[in-house]
Amino acid sequence: MRIALLGGTGDIGEGLALRFARDTGHEILIGSRDPEKARDAVAEYEGALADRTDEVDIKGFANEMAADRADVVILSVPPYYVGDTVDTVADNLDSDTVLVTPAVGMQGDEDGLHYHPPEAGSVTQLVAQRAPDGVPVVGAFHNLAADALSTLENDLDLDTLVVADDDAAADTVLTVANEIEGLRALEAGPLANAAEVESVTPLVINIAKYNEEMHDVGVKWIDGSD
Amino acid sequence: MRIALLGGTGDIGEGLALRFARDTGHEILIGSRDPEKARDAVAEYEGALADRTDEVDIKGFANEMAADRADVVILSVPPYYVGDTVDTVADNLDSDTVLVTPAVGMQGDEDGLHYHPPEAGSVTQLVAQRAPDGVPVVGAFHNLAADALSTLENDLDLDTLVVADDDAAADTVLTVANEIEGLRALEAGPLANAAEVESVTPLVINIAKYNEEMHDVGVKWIDGSD
Repeated sequence: MRIALLGGTGDIGEGLALRFARDTGHEILIGSRDPEKARDAVAEYEGALADRTDEVDIKGFANEMAADRADVVILSVPPYYVGDTVDTVADNLDSDTVLVTPAVGMQGDEDGLHYHPPEAGSVTQLVAQRAPDGVPVVGAFHNLAADALSTLENDLDLDTLVVADDDAAADTVLTVANEIEGLRALEAGPLANAAEVESVTPLVINIAKYNEEMHDVGVKWIDGSD
Repeated sequence: MRIALLGGTGDIGEGLALRFARDTGHEILIGSRDPEKARDAVAEYEGALADRTDEVDIKGFANEMAADRADVVILSVPPYYVGDTVDTVADNLDSDTVLVTPAVGMQGDEDGLHYHPPEAGSVTQLVAQRAPDGVPVVGAFHNLAADALSTLENDLDLDTLVVADDDAAADTVLTVANEIEGLRALEAGPLANAAEVESVTPLVINIAKYNEEMHDVGVKWIDGSD
């Protein structure tokens, strides 16, 4: 499968690119508005991956080209670019492409970060509104600790939640997410449930801020009846 | 220390009462609008605790009397009763009483549960508005799996988050929460950060709904840099 990370030069894009490249057999496409920047990032990621895996299949492209070639397109751009990025690649998406959004709208003040969703209810639902008709949208990879992800020495033990209205698209994302070592993907229902998933992101940052011993906070969902 | 659970006959009240009574040396006061109902619950809890601990110090009272005697007052009532319950016990609280709120406003639809905060921004902030001047308010015990808590055979391995504007009150709640075996209390900042904490509650219920293998979901906050 081909997995594109649009904005794949940013922090969450870097972490996902490195983990997918190391732990899965998928072809990884790094997208950027500037293809030169994408290729520079690829060179850097190849360096980080050297000696960690036998074969690295990772290439850099402009966002449109990366989206055009991919089966799964992950919008790893800041929340205020998400809508525009969807518009930019709209002609390169079709009903066979799964469009994945990990972005979260937040506002900060002296107390910490607060969840600040767009009018659509969540960034995930905003992406669903902006995506071309028939392109399945999935919310995933929201609450990951980006630094922990991109530091390959770290053994992960984290969960990610998946929301989607399209069951097949959800299954695709659950499968590739679970292929990352130490990452467990769980379902959280339809896109209408995205706000509660997204609002965990400011919370993990607040927990890191207020607990000295914690630095890069992620989450595990525990079955308390075990 | 004396810990009162107002509405201590309900599910989260039961779970906290049983765990505090078993795991700590504190005196537990079960409050209810009807003192007879409180005493019935105490008899039931004493039965559940028999053979599990040497000494059980748990008594039933009307909410006002329980609040009056306690150092820590936990509002374990449904969210739509929280404001009225604070009013009912207002004369029994003072600056030496820590008022703790675990309630969360939620609305359900066919997709799952959604966070539905009051106008104050969160139930925790609503309690802070309604509490008499000078009474420190702490948000805690929001995201616990109630059934897991009240089933004493279950070994817990869960976190709870604490929000407060008053550092001493926060410390008191952190201390007593950490005395429950298998429960770790972490700080999440001032009361202004309560909404993100509360909104995890509908999320854990949605996760239980959409993942067959999970029943009574709670949360652990993980340091991804470990």
